[in-house]
Amino acid sequence: MATLGAYEGRHKVTIVGSGNWGTTIAKVIAENTKEHPDLFEENVQMWVYEEEITIPEASKLHDPSSEYSKEKHKLTTLINHFHENVKYLPNIALPHNIIANPSLQDSVKDSTILIFNLPHQFIDKLCDQMKGHVLSYARGVSCIKGVSVSSEDIKLFSESIGEKLEIYVGALSGANIANEVALEKFSETTVAYDPPPMDSRSATPKEGRTPQASELDLTQITEHKDSKGFKSRVRLTAQPSELPPLDHRLIHTLFHRPYFHVHVVSDVAGVSLGGALKNIVALAAGFVAGLGWGDNAKAAIMRIGLLEMRKFGKMFFENSVRTATFTEESAGVADLITSCSGGRNFRCAKMSVERKMSIAEVEKSELNGQMLQGVSTAQEVYGFLKARGKQNEFPLLTSTYRILQGEAKVEDLPALVAKPNEF
Amino acid sequence: MATLGAYEGRHKVTIVGSGNWGTTIAKVIAENTKEHPDLFEENVQMWVYEEEITIPEASKLHDPSSEYSKEKHKLTTLINHFHENVKYLPNIALPHNIIANPSLQDSVKDSTILIFNLPHQFIDKLCDQMKGHVLSYARGVSCIKGVSVSSEDIKLFSESIGEKLEIYVGALSGANIANEVALEKFSETTVAYDPPPMDSRSATPKEGRTPQASELDLTQITEHKDSKGFKSRVRLTAQPSELPPLDHRLIHTLFHRPYFHVHVVSDVAGVSLGGALKNIVALAAGFVAGLGWGDNAKAAIMRIGLLEMRKFGKMFFENSVRTATFTEESAGVADLITSCSGGRNFRCAKMSVERKMSIAEVEKSELNGQMLQGVSTAQEVYGFLKARGKQNEFPLLTSTYRILQGEAKVEDLPALVAKPNEF
Repeated sequence: MATLGAYEGRHKVTIVGSGNWGTTIAKVIAENTKEHPDLFEENVQMWVYEEEITIPEASKLHDPSSEYSKEKHKLTTLINHFHENVKYLPNIALPHNIIANPSLQDSVKDSTILIFNLPHQFIDKLCDQMKGHVLSYARGVSCIKGVSVSSEDIKLFSESIGEKLEIYVGALSGANIANEVALEKFSETTVAYDPPPMDSRSATPKEGRTPQASELDLTQITEHKDSKGFKSRVRLTAQPSELPPLDHRLIHTLFHRPYFHVHVVSDVAGVSLGGALKNIVALAAGFVAGLGWGDNAKAAIMRIGLLEMRKFGKMFFENSVRTATFTEESAGVADLITSCSGGRNFRCAKMSVERKMSIAEVEKSELNGQMLQGVSTAQEVYGFLKARGKQNEFPLLTSTYRILQGEAKVEDLPALVAKPNEF
Repeated sequence: MATLGAYEGRHKVTIVGSGNWGTTIAKVIAENTKEHPDLFEENVQMWVYEEEITIPEASKLHDPSSEYSKEKHKLTTLINHFHENVKYLPNIALPHNIIANPSLQDSVKDSTILIFNLPHQFIDKLCDQMKGHVLSYARGVSCIKGVSVSSEDIKLFSESIGEKLEIYVGALSGANIANEVALEKFSETTVAYDPPPMDSRSATPKEGRTPQASELDLTQITEHKDSKGFKSRVRLTAQPSELPPLDHRLIHTLFHRPYFHVHVVSDVAGVSLGGALKNIVALAAGFVAGLGWGDNAKAAIMRIGLLEMRKFGKMFFENSVRTATFTEESAGVADLITSCSGGRNFRCAKMSVERKMSIAEVEKSELNGQMLQGVSTAQEVYGFLKARGKQNEFPLLTSTYRILQGEAKVEDLPALVAKPNEF
């Protein structure tokens, strides 16, 4: 049995990304590395896309006599001087052990744990830059919400990163509005991490799927299963035995705070799908709210949506997805609830019905033409389902797409989602 | 196999109760009996607690020249004349086949299906009055939300009625704000009905627990199981074979409307507990909303509450309760969502924190001293758990009670609901 503090080595942690959510997660992580010096190096590297700014007048840090308020300085300089991400997480004091680093390669050097928190469109490019600079036995957790869907395939962002860098990467998702977490308002999250077999030096207590140590020298194994339950083409190297084992307990220690409660599961696909599909359901909930149909209708749409999300996971990730990830985890039902409360997809869909505007017009007037996450996901998911002839088995996801296309009416949703052949 | 229309007899349906929700359900039922003359007598009796009123000036039916607007008339007279429940469901046109009846005994006479929709405190008295006047083979569905809890026992309202009248009674519950259903805004509901064995003349297609017809003459059986899975002390009489079998399909036909989607299950205890325990969770959600903690915290409380509701059901109704009733049905997760959106328990709890008032003070100022459902349920459930030494296994339900008692602070909820021994 592993005992805390019994290891020579310590994990070095890097946060790849420093936006609103990235800086928030860096704060959470740095608080924990400081509290657990037996497990982690105290200092946490945070890679920052360098830019030059002056302290804005609205900031509490603004001081007309200071050079930082008069002249442009590098964002990394400001973060390391003021211990605040003035641009992306203003007015939140950061732990002093967060080290902002403008060099991607340098920030990930020698790190055993990489936390990815970037806009998904930068994944490919940044992985290319990191390639060859990360430890062969590094492990990762992706905090990037959603999945990449084409008519051919569904790809988890965690697995895209893992394949590029040839490491294993899990996923974090949940009812996590970044500013509320940063302000230490109570939140929960779900971290999905299925420890690859070669890392299983000690038993991870939860969930039967995690391999157990045995007579076999597991550290010599290089294969692991991907989220679809098939052999991954990525060959992994075991983490050295000097390091504390990277199991569910260590993941919990790294992310859990008194204000940020963590539940660790092994279902990476379920956690990732929850963060993507909920945006489609939030659009549908917004549509019926826009009609003024009331709380019954909204709750009905959310319930039907939750079950279609689960069905989708079970159908396309049948070897790994668990029902409870959708119906019981923060990454499932709770994230759906926040998204259907005041989230962007919900609000814009509601507005489009109330003002009788198309979603494209709302995106133009409210989001400067930026596309809603739910709209692109609805299109991609519909294309994926249609390519398999499965679109009619997901009436809510499909109807939401058809409403967006102007092919169906919100008023017809009850009939469209009814199960005519229940008896 | 039963074929629709192959039976000599028809079911006669009575609604016992005519308040806001009772009249709404009467409307739903009467629309369906009219559409299915092969299964049901068209006319639906609705028992009305008689009172005398004049048509109020605010009513669309008000006509200064009419005697109904000048003088008091019996409520049953007004309902049967105007086809509107002027007092409890104003401005909603009712089907003409609803017959308001001031005599409880006469209204239930010869009815094969009784729908109970009364304030729970009148159950005992009204059952005493009905006793001896209902058919021995009548069956019922209770639309009364909640359960009766003492430190000794948890009693479902449906079973209290069933025992008094010596008939089998199921339960209806869901995300069902009455006025929205009455206005035909889209809603869903769950009806729990576990057909007793002597009624099983034809196979009910769903759910394995329902007994199947066999070589045995099931109609001679008089025993059935109660919601705890034990032999009920009520001896039942089989419904005559002339009547269409009262199975899940018939229940669906009786309640389902294009705007009111019905899912039929067999888990009467789960459906009933959902309608009771959600009120405690709504108080807790209101407390954290009152602190201004945001959407993450509210969703976390709802998620934790949902799982404690499920655990409660599984612990105390282990032979009958199903997880899915809580996590997937309208009577579970969807009803919880509506209750935590704008429900009375949520609003008053939020207000008590915002204005730093006790719940009793809020009840006094906002509800004329009427007690919130969630407050009495929290007290009863705590007493029940304490009597079994189980209060610490339900940290959210217990903490909500302790906050109401002034023994715990809302600010401490995250610590109180944390699982210290997760690893």
